[in-house]
Amino acid sequence: MSTGRAQQKEETRLRVLKAARRHFEEHGFDEANLRAIAAEANVSAATVIVHFKDKKELLHAALFDDLEETIERALRELPEAELETQLHAITESFFGYYQAHPKLSRTLLKESLFAEPPWAQRFSGQVTKVHARIAGLYQAAAAKAGVDSAAEAPLFAVAYLSFYYFALIAWAQGANDAPVRMVDGLVAQHLRGLLPRTPDRRTRR
Amino acid sequence: MSTGRAQQKEETRLRVLKAARRHFEEHGFDEANLRAIAAEANVSAATVIVHFKDKKELLHAALFDDLEETIERALRELPEAELETQLHAITESFFGYYQAHPKLSRTLLKESLFAEPPWAQRFSGQVTKVHARIAGLYQAAAAKAGVDSAAEAPLFAVAYLSFYYFALIAWAQGANDAPVRMVDGLVAQHLRGLLPRTPDRRTRR
Repeated sequence: MSTGRAQQKEETRLRVLKAARRHFEEHGFDEANLRAIAAEANVSAATVIVHFKDKKELLHAALFDDLEETIERALRELPEAELETQLHAITESFFGYYQAHPKLSRTLLKESLFAEPPWAQRFSGQVTKVHARIAGLYQAAAAKAGVDSAAEAPLFAVAYLSFYYFALIAWAQGANDAPVRMVDGLVAQHLRGLLPRTPDRRTRR
Repeated sequence: MSTGRAQQKEETRLRVLKAARRHFEEHGFDEANLRAIAAEANVSAATVIVHFKDKKELLHAALFDDLEETIERALRELPEAELETQLHAITESFFGYYQAHPKLSRTLLKESLFAEPPWAQRFSGQVTKVHARIAGLYQAAAAKAGVDSAAEAPLFAVAYLSFYYFALIAWAQGANDAPVRMVDGLVAQHLRGLLPRTPDRRTRR
């Protein structure tokens, strides 16, 4: 395929994805219509099928690309600041995207949690990338504070992801309209600890 | 309705729910068949419809009743022990149920997270009950340790639920086969804290 044709194909793909996102956001996944998406992207329904097979595949591709961009942007430019401020910036980037696309985000949550292969692997690859970065941020902060962090860093990153998903689910259910503040509060409590530190508590596990 | 008839109706309901659970567990929700469930419960399909409207309603009722029983059992007989041991017992009760019914539990997770009213309210009522109990357990442990807990207890209970759901999702995705250990580890890290406690960190928020 010539460079020109490849470029044209990629442009078509991006145009279809953009139209799909708008339709999914406006009508929800179940109501969104493949023909209407094709019309808005100025291609035939057959062209959409060539690129994406079916509506579900189109949804996954649209969500994956958007998430990828959101994650890259969130991780790219982190402030030189203490750990909690850095995590706050990441949380705010993610929820900034969700809150700008509430319907799409609810669909995203449902679909990415229960996706089938190969999308399950692709979505979990994104989570792995965020996990590794959070663990790295914790390690840097711990090193600065003179704390040994090798064993704690991966578990801390799992704790962050737990808080993040819980806040996302609560927000998607309409049960919490301040998810970023919820994550901030949970992270702060997690770093601070709760009950008094006694020697046996610290070394028991 | 006479007591005898009311009792008979309740027995029919329970028999249908039991058959439904077995079919959902064996075939999954999408494949499970209402006629086959009715046959196993020794009633007509029409009787099932009178009790439960449709397959989805039947699924929700079956899951809700099972969850209710699992929660009651987990909270009823807690060991007189330190907080982490009590939480471990609760976590183990929940995952004991899930691991005994893997297919049903995956369906449960998907359906209870994204249920429509009135089931959404019923499922979230169950979560609220667990949250309140966990907060109470933390308060009792904090009082014993001489720590003021009024502000921290509800947030601690949210942290526990975050860990619990994250482990449940990871387990349902096949990404973690030791969810109880995961929750235990996260709870321990949360109670212990991570970075050194400095006055500004403790009072900043």
